[in-house]
Amino acid sequence: MVQTSSADASPNLRALLSRRALDLPDAPRLDNTEDVATRISFVYGFPDPESLPAAEVAAAAASVLEKNGRWALQYGDTAGYRGLMEALLAKLERDQGITAGRENMIVTAGGSQAMQLVLDALVDWGDTVITEAPTWLGAVQAFRNVGAEVVSVPVDGQGTDTGALERALVRLRDAGIQPKLIYVISNFQNPSGISTSVERRRRILELAREHGTLILEDDAYFDLRYEGASLPPIYALDDGASTMYLGTLSKTMGAGMRLGWLLAPPAVIGRLTALKIDGGTNVFGAHVAAEWLPDHLDAHVRELREIYRRRRDVMLASLERHMPAGTTWTRPEGGFFVWVTLPPGVDTTRMLPQACERGVEYLPGATCYADERGRDQLRLSFSFAADDTIDAGIGIIAEIAKGELSEAGRS
Amino acid sequence: MVQTSSADASPNLRALLSRRALDLPDAPRLDNTEDVATRISFVYGFPDPESLPAAEVAAAAASVLEKNGRWALQYGDTAGYRGLMEALLAKLERDQGITAGRENMIVTAGGSQAMQLVLDALVDWGDTVITEAPTWLGAVQAFRNVGAEVVSVPVDGQGTDTGALERALVRLRDAGIQPKLIYVISNFQNPSGISTSVERRRRILELAREHGTLILEDDAYFDLRYEGASLPPIYALDDGASTMYLGTLSKTMGAGMRLGWLLAPPAVIGRLTALKIDGGTNVFGAHVAAEWLPDHLDAHVRELREIYRRRRDVMLASLERHMPAGTTWTRPEGGFFVWVTLPPGVDTTRMLPQACERGVEYLPGATCYADERGRDQLRLSFSFAADDTIDAGIGIIAEIAKGELSEAGRS
Repeated sequence: MVQTSSADASPNLRALLSRRALDLPDAPRLDNTEDVATRISFVYGFPDPESLPAAEVAAAAASVLEKNGRWALQYGDTAGYRGLMEALLAKLERDQGITAGRENMIVTAGGSQAMQLVLDALVDWGDTVITEAPTWLGAVQAFRNVGAEVVSVPVDGQGTDTGALERALVRLRDAGIQPKLIYVISNFQNPSGISTSVERRRRILELAREHGTLILEDDAYFDLRYEGASLPPIYALDDGASTMYLGTLSKTMGAGMRLGWLLAPPAVIGRLTALKIDGGTNVFGAHVAAEWLPDHLDAHVRELREIYRRRRDVMLASLERHMPAGTTWTRPEGGFFVWVTLPPGVDTTRMLPQACERGVEYLPGATCYADERGRDQLRLSFSFAADDTIDAGIGIIAEIAKGELSEAGRS
Repeated sequence: MVQTSSADASPNLRALLSRRALDLPDAPRLDNTEDVATRISFVYGFPDPESLPAAEVAAAAASVLEKNGRWALQYGDTAGYRGLMEALLAKLERDQGITAGRENMIVTAGGSQAMQLVLDALVDWGDTVITEAPTWLGAVQAFRNVGAEVVSVPVDGQGTDTGALERALVRLRDAGIQPKLIYVISNFQNPSGISTSVERRRRILELAREHGTLILEDDAYFDLRYEGASLPPIYALDDGASTMYLGTLSKTMGAGMRLGWLLAPPAVIGRLTALKIDGGTNVFGAHVAAEWLPDHLDAHVRELREIYRRRRDVMLASLERHMPAGTTWTRPEGGFFVWVTLPPGVDTTRMLPQACERGVEYLPGATCYADERGRDQLRLSFSFAADDTIDAGIGIIAEIAKGELSEAGRS
């Protein structure tokens, strides 16, 4: 039983690791983040660096530290700083049409901690979750980390394919399997850019109720709509019993705040707060955000919409200009992402090193699926790269794709 | 299989919860934190509110947002902001005598996220961990949340009882059980206030190596030593293969920063960063801390030592003055806590409501054990309550204890 190897007194790490950790890649998801500024980067859902409200945040920080430094620098409530919760609830009511109270809310370190807490509270190793495919790559990794069996439902031009969702739910029921949650990104889906129609949103809710499961609705991009009318979140269509609603300040105030939230039934919030032993989420940042939010968020979001609408349009025009015949892409009404499907014979994972060598990066489609699909697809984020670099970047990707196609033609 | 209850379309939550969440208390660990200021509070390990460096933090925030707002408000590396890592590594080398590189470090949301990540990476439901008893109540809860079987080793006047630790390890080996980690708080242990001797630290390391397990050394209070010479952390005695070393800025710069770190072998750090899907830990706060740390931490810590040494002495004198005969307590050389053992017949959990009613609060001893012990004990934190309130608070606790004792005598 002694696990020490005699050479260096190192324990045998594999004998100590949990199932979650045993087969992990030995690399972080984000590393050398600041290096993306040296490339034309379409890879991450990073907000535009030029428009981050640094001066306003500095003023808010100075103000809260003067008024209330003794609590901004102290431990805080596990569920979140009340001042921030109240500011967020007021915003959610005004913009999203969501009526909720503090008993429905937990403040988290970005949307990702909310996702992790939900998985910890619902998923045992081997449990089943339902997700859209393609979906957010962080979710793909988080599901794998907790050992979830992932059932994928496609996204079409109207969003989540609710026919496929129903068939999946019925099949699971017939097999005696209770799915723990249905993960959907209702607006400007990551990575497809597609929003799920209101009719489909209602149908997802009906199906969740019928099958006794919970919806985890990720709405990170709600505020960033560049055209068309806002759609009500599933949470707002629900009576509050079946939907968990995840949001974040990452795409508006700034990702560096690492502040997100989850709305959920109070019984769920209770479990999540009991699991969240962290001394309060980013108490200092939460005080600063609470100070900044009421007077600045709305104006800032209006500015961001202009910036991102313009970048989206530049990117769509560049795709039109450069991409090989047979390529298709989505035309998002908001958010950060265009989803590109290349003609048969192109492998976007294999293309990536060539693109990186030429100073351009994108997200290969395969990272957005829990199974082996997406090799002919890629996600382009138009949020981070400056306007005047987008066309050159798309041109390079198109050239590489054309090279792949002509090689595929020859072989 | 349909789990919907017909009355309100609420799913049957118990059918959806994971083992982690099923039997949780339906309450957060920290709630209404700001209310502690309305009481004489000896309950939490909260830093002194008056001495938090609010003005310096405001200046640091203004400076980083001006110089580098585009990265302070952006997503960051999963392992942590490099500027902060470098500042922390320099501090650890200077003060703790620890030589480590960035490959050994992960920045976390306080020490508690580091603890959670370590448990996620090492502990499957039913796995065994070894801990001191009594220990930090957050650890007691975190172990329970992940379903760990807890083997407790007592703390005596020299710290971790290494004889008992050896017997526990041998017993586990004989039973074919591989303990996943040994959790120790080497300095001014929470809650006992006792530091483990250097000889014992070396012995813990030998035993961990012999039994192929890892040490999780929690050293949250290292900087706050009020007398005696610093002792080398176990991590500094190790060649780096068997020890994980957890630290925090919560007790020095301010708990509201929610910044801590873990040092560990690079193979462990790799797994933790792959599990930590969070967009970087508190990127804004990390930039502010990196700006503040090099020029301010040392002077600030010197001030804090004066404040807390004085409070400790006030508390020890008050205990001497008020406590009933037969009461014993520890005399910590640093940290925040005095650990009190009352005479037989007193139940500190039962006493607590009376104390709260009279405006005083403390931590009942039973919360610091994974089993049913500690009912005659309590933890007093001298860090938070103002100097001139300590004597009155201790007087009230002593009166209640005396009342309990005379009732116990009568019955």
